Amino acid sequence: MRTQVAIIGSGPSGLMLGHLLRQAGVDAVIIERQSSEHVLSRIRAGVLETVTTDILEDLDIAERMRAEGLPHDGFNLADGERLIRIDIKALTGKQVMVYGQTEVTKDLIDAAPSRGLEIVWEADDVALHDFESDAPYVTYRKDGAEHRVDARFIAGCDGFHGPSRKAIPEAVGKGFEKVYPFGWLGILSDVPPCNHELIYANHENGFALASMRSMTRSRYYIQVPLSDKLEDWPDEKLWDELCRRLPPEGAANVTRGPALEKSIAPLRSYVFEPMRHGSLFLAGDAAHIVPPTGAKGLNLAASDVRYLSQALIAWFEKNDGDALAAYSDKALARVWKSERFSWQLTMLMHRFPEDGPFDRRIQIAELDYVATSETARRAIAENYVGLPL
Amino acid sequence: MRTQVAIIGSGPSGLMLGHLLRQAGVDAVIIERQSSEHVLSRIRAGVLETVTTDILEDLDIAERMRAEGLPHDGFNLADGERLIRIDIKALTGKQVMVYGQTEVTKDLIDAAPSRGLEIVWEADDVALHDFESDAPYVTYRKDGAEHRVDARFIAGCDGFHGPSRKAIPEAVGKGFEKVYPFGWLGILSDVPPCNHELIYANHENGFALASMRSMTRSRYYIQVPLSDKLEDWPDEKLWDELCRRLPPEGAANVTRGPALEKSIAPLRSYVFEPMRHGSLFLAGDAAHIVPPTGAKGLNLAASDVRYLSQALIAWFEKNDGDALAAYSDKALARVWKSERFSWQLTMLMHRFPEDGPFDRRIQIAELDYVATSETARRAIAENYVGLPL
Repeated sequence: MRTQVAIIGSGPSGLMLGHLLRQAGVDAVIIERQSSEHVLSRIRAGVLETVTTDILEDLDIAERMRAEGLPHDGFNLADGERLIRIDIKALTGKQVMVYGQTEVTKDLIDAAPSRGLEIVWEADDVALHDFESDAPYVTYRKDGAEHRVDARFIAGCDGFHGPSRKAIPEAVGKGFEKVYPFGWLGILSDVPPCNHELIYANHENGFALASMRSMTRSRYYIQVPLSDKLEDWPDEKLWDELCRRLPPEGAANVTRGPALEKSIAPLRSYVFEPMRHGSLFLAGDAAHIVPPTGAKGLNLAASDVRYLSQALIAWFEKNDGDALAAYSDKALARVWKSERFSWQLTMLMHRFPEDGPFDRRIQIAELDYVATSETARRAIAENYVGLPL
Repeated sequence: MRTQVAIIGSGPSGLMLGHLLRQAGVDAVIIERQSSEHVLSRIRAGVLETVTTDILEDLDIAERMRAEGLPHDGFNLADGERLIRIDIKALTGKQVMVYGQTEVTKDLIDAAPSRGLEIVWEADDVALHDFESDAPYVTYRKDGAEHRVDARFIAGCDGFHGPSRKAIPEAVGKGFEKVYPFGWLGILSDVPPCNHELIYANHENGFALASMRSMTRSRYYIQVPLSDKLEDWPDEKLWDELCRRLPPEGAANVTRGPALEKSIAPLRSYVFEPMRHGSLFLAGDAAHIVPPTGAKGLNLAASDVRYLSQALIAWFEKNDGDALAAYSDKALARVWKSERFSWQLTMLMHRFPEDGPFDRRIQIAELDYVATSETARRAIAENYVGLPL
């Protein structure tokens, strides 16, 4: 098979990139290791910046999001009993959209056939070849046969564990990493959310987050030690601890329900530089991971894809390689600012086992400052809605 | 001797407090361990917030400051060759005043006799007594004789090493501390400053600060390991290293000159809570220390003294103890916010031996964010000029 851009990975990065390229008449094929059922069963983030909703709007794949998504004007930071509202609408003029990443992925997959975007599902042993040349290709096995896709460029949109980043020689790239000394225990349940806006809570027992996917589906998290296992947290114990950590406004309105999903995820900050090597370009989680505090993961994938699609289209339409040459630096500038924000919000809202009394007082002082300074709230808000592209 | 408020320490806190009390007709005596010559030989900070200049104006002791001080509209953060200007005038409508703490102290001491503010110099073995009662007193030795000052209240304005805080029983108060893994090597020289505004530089060799006391007196600092001694840094080596760390705009204009003073100071964050015990009130360095990054030390003393003088005057004039009861909480709220800012600016601008590549990237990302976001610059500026009282 021959195409212009071979995209590895059918998560939101690969799907958005594929659609944006197809919209401009550039050929693209997505090669995905999993089945579509598996991809659509993954539970991920759910707060979209304008950078992400704009892509769906521009692709004309926004109808369901507009109908079912929840535009939010603000969110809350809680510290014990205190609630600090960040009025993002008043502070920035923008909103965020609560709409699950799973739904975004579904909408993009559903629209693929009518847009001429081919997705190869269940491709085993995906491997990248000759991407230091102008004639790279991707191989995979499917239904017992070997397949080969020749392309002008490869886009590695295959997440943190995919083969794309790992194919880049060690001498060429470098990873920057911070691992946090705790995880998030999450529960998804078809119950109404306890509050109409998100609450990020810093409680003496640890962080808690009251989030949602819709007005009938709640997503809650609590900070747990990395040594904890799921069996340490039967549902009732999780609900009890969640209610303990949320401020009264939230705790009083928690509706308990059966877990649609329950898992413990570690928190990590990671950036790989550069995001290009030869004819291979990385986008989204393949190049960087943020801790989920602040919901930047999907939105960073969207800005990568916006930059990369524009650069690839310029190359195919006008044979102009400047934007491709600038892609890595441009994407990384925004990535690092989001990494900084996600790191800062994580540091502010969690309890760190190594922290002493001074560090805790600095957290309280920062929350006091945020509570009393409109400028401090605006700084958080402008990062939360997404810095300019 | 009998007075209304016995003030221990004749640094800026004690002097400003004494003057403010005297202006309202409250009797006060300052008891100082050192000679006036020694106090006036101490080199300290030199950037005054409005909270400090307002006190001097209200006391009508601002004439020399107005004539000789340098109002600054901004300052600079440097990262390698990049210079980021924080335009505090445009961002906050306020300025800061460059005028040495030594000069403030001199003006306050010179004005003391005409205002009826008695200062006892060279008082040995100062001790605080019965401050858990309504009849505290202070004892000291001078010229071979024992002396006693009876007062209604004692104000501990005697710095980090003075006896006031140490007199508070351990069960009553608690100190919060962070010690930084480096010190500042400072040089004072009668040469024109290299730049008309301050430059805080984050260089791969470590932090450097280009500051000044006047247009003919420069104050420079460089970050050094705590193990370094003054004899490791002959003048030429210090000037060379300073020029290496400052951005080109600064380095090119450094005028070298003999050292009027040269010293290595450790960096520390420290807060003691509460700032009141019985009839004893702490103010300034006696209760808290900030690292010098951001020049908050003297200005925090000024806000403490503003709150404390108002509270003491209300008590003596109207027998109203509410403000005295609220003093510790009110002062600490502002102290902790300044501690947070000083800590943040210290973390942003220094190289920490324990930091890895990720931490350094976060510093760069934060500086990128500051360089590109007016809101981020305004947040720094509003802290730099001083948060509202």
